[in-house]
Amino acid sequence: MPTFRLTLEYEGSDFAGWQVQAGAVRTLQGTLEAAIERVSGVRVRVHGAGRTDAGVHAEGQVASVALETGLGAPVLQRALNAVLPRDLAVVAVEQVQGDFHARYHARAKLYRYRIWNAARPSPLRASRSWWVKPALDAAAMQAAGTLVLGTHDFASFQALGSDVTSTERTLTRCDIRGIPAVSEPDARGEIEILVEGNGFLRHMVRILAGTLVQAGMGRREPASLCAVIAARERRAAGPTAPPQGLTLVRVSY
Amino acid sequence: MPTFRLTLEYEGSDFAGWQVQAGAVRTLQGTLEAAIERVSGVRVRVHGAGRTDAGVHAEGQVASVALETGLGAPVLQRALNAVLPRDLAVVAVEQVQGDFHARYHARAKLYRYRIWNAARPSPLRASRSWWVKPALDAAAMQAAGTLVLGTHDFASFQALGSDVTSTERTLTRCDIRGIPAVSEPDARGEIEILVEGNGFLRHMVRILAGTLVQAGMGRREPASLCAVIAARERRAAGPTAPPQGLTLVRVSY
Repeated sequence: MPTFRLTLEYEGSDFAGWQVQAGAVRTLQGTLEAAIERVSGVRVRVHGAGRTDAGVHAEGQVASVALETGLGAPVLQRALNAVLPRDLAVVAVEQVQGDFHARYHARAKLYRYRIWNAARPSPLRASRSWWVKPALDAAAMQAAGTLVLGTHDFASFQALGSDVTSTERTLTRCDIRGIPAVSEPDARGEIEILVEGNGFLRHMVRILAGTLVQAGMGRREPASLCAVIAARERRAAGPTAPPQGLTLVRVSY
Repeated sequence: MPTFRLTLEYEGSDFAGWQVQAGAVRTLQGTLEAAIERVSGVRVRVHGAGRTDAGVHAEGQVASVALETGLGAPVLQRALNAVLPRDLAVVAVEQVQGDFHARYHARAKLYRYRIWNAARPSPLRASRSWWVKPALDAAAMQAAGTLVLGTHDFASFQALGSDVTSTERTLTRCDIRGIPAVSEPDARGEIEILVEGNGFLRHMVRILAGTLVQAGMGRREPASLCAVIAARERRAAGPTAPPQGLTLVRVSY
């Protein structure tokens, strides 16, 4: 049976996250499965590389699906885009080896967390970033972010109530980029946190963003990140940053 | 009585345009007037530099208001942003000379029209750009755009049924910028049209964008823009591009 790898872009504001849930809840997985059924006549299960939360966006989520169809990859892409709602699209389709699984075979994921750091709100950024009023020190955030690189037990950066076998993950990138807005009197603007790793716990990037913002506001020492990791307790880390700032940029295989 | 100049940013998707209308319609002018009444207790009329259509966005719309208040400009800004909905914000407030009028005193306005030029839709761009599938030739669009520079009778670029004294306007800028998307196999991506002028007729930028896109698709010669201007008839120009691609970037005084 042909297996396809779908690359997806979505605006997560109006979705209750990736994963299918009981009840009449609008999810990405459910919407994609319904579209596949509509164009192929086959009821299937798709697997996503990352189970993004409600309100989280994606530029390069990857899903795999085994699908008994005569449609080739380019035709399947066009057919899906013709029936999908405007907040979910298929960026690319490839036919792949039958054992390909979007989640199990993912080697790395890149997330971007975007912050609008200014005294006033920005309507054009509201659904894509976290508005943080106090001026952030990007250098302090970078100093803190560098300390999470490498292989650690990230239990402190996991939502309470999660249930996974291991909380050890490896982060290979944690870059802070400041993008001053020309329009802002104090030259503040957007700050992006780019985080890449081999896997992520539930809310991990959002808790990391919340903790780095504390460092950026001077409410915690950058060096404290070592102690946060060592504590292996959710309460040692900062607050969970809101979902709309987060985008799954790319999944590598 | 103190007069204030307000610079506004808005996400126009959920507004029925700038201008107050009869009935329970959500407009930018009406929303702003209600917020001013709420923070100052005074019912006022605000005047906008440009009466943007439903679905059109702004990064730098300007409004003027004469307001009997003891509030200083920075306090007024914070108070308004505290009560405004998240798709409308006050970027700056200045107290100005009592005769200042946002529309009558505007010297120039800069608009940006954004096109997503790719084979597939982009959910993250859907509410901010016009999706055009056929590959556009940005050089042909620029060649056409250059011909509208200067002072002309722009009657061909005015919505039918408009009623203005003069349709003569001066355009000082019509730049096409291509921004290739790294993710697209054919290196297509966003195309922006930047148009600046001393004034604009109803739908003028959107009709111009629709006409330049015809040139970009090879459906009309760039040189035909001279004949379009000379015709002074709406049907000589191209279609009206959809509103969500348009943003009022800046008003100069």
